[in-house]
Amino acid sequence: MSPRYIDAQHAVTDLVEGACKRDGMTEDAKLTAYRESIDNIDAALIHMLAERFKITRAVGEYKAAAGLPPADPEREARQVTRLRRLAADARLDEELAEKFLRFIIEEVIRHHERIQRGQP
Amino acid sequence: MSPRYIDAQHAVTDLVEGACKRDGMTEDAKLTAYRESIDNIDAALIHMLAERFKITRAVGEYKAAAGLPPADPEREARQVTRLRRLAADARLDEELAEKFLRFIIEEVIRHHERIQRGQP
Repeated sequence: MSPRYIDAQHAVTDLVEGACKRDGMTEDAKLTAYRESIDNIDAALIHMLAERFKITRAVGEYKAAAGLPPADPEREARQVTRLRRLAADARLDEELAEKFLRFIIEEVIRHHERIQRGQP
Repeated sequence: MSPRYIDAQHAVTDLVEGACKRDGMTEDAKLTAYRESIDNIDAALIHMLAERFKITRAVGEYKAAAGLPPADPEREARQVTRLRRLAADARLDEELAEKFLRFIIEEVIRHHERIQRGQP
């Protein structure tokens, strides 16, 4: 773990700890505060994923109509390289970012294959 | 696939198709336009994930200090129920939302276990 990651994580800890002290929170309340932030972020992630799958569904229909294969390894390689770089800048573990993208792409290809078989 | 999902996806397709016609784009340019939107969404997802993992790292340190176990099945069950509901509202496949959350939680637990073993 690089010093940059640890600094960023300490900044978040300090933020929640500062808020807890100010509001006279107990230790349990601190965990609750962390979880409220996680829940907010999860809601944002779900809504971004919903938008992403709307677009990939359109791509799937486009590919089916154009006779293109569901998977595109060159495009995937470019996406992996780009997201690993973005993850490094955002202080997110690059391996995790790649695993996340591969999880999403696998789901998308499954959807594209369904579309090419004419299934909804 | 419910009519709601299909309507939402057609709205996106129409949006990109409208922009393509207006700008005199070829079919290849349409695929490029879809991919630019996907790339923007992926950047947003990576940055939200970076924030989420900063907070779960702090939770991991809190749990290690308080002697709490890395996993919390009751909390996970509440998260799954909530995210499935949010996914349904956002017209995202609920199964996919649950698989996504479980992917993230598995990574988080792995991180928490590392922290409890005193590894960075």
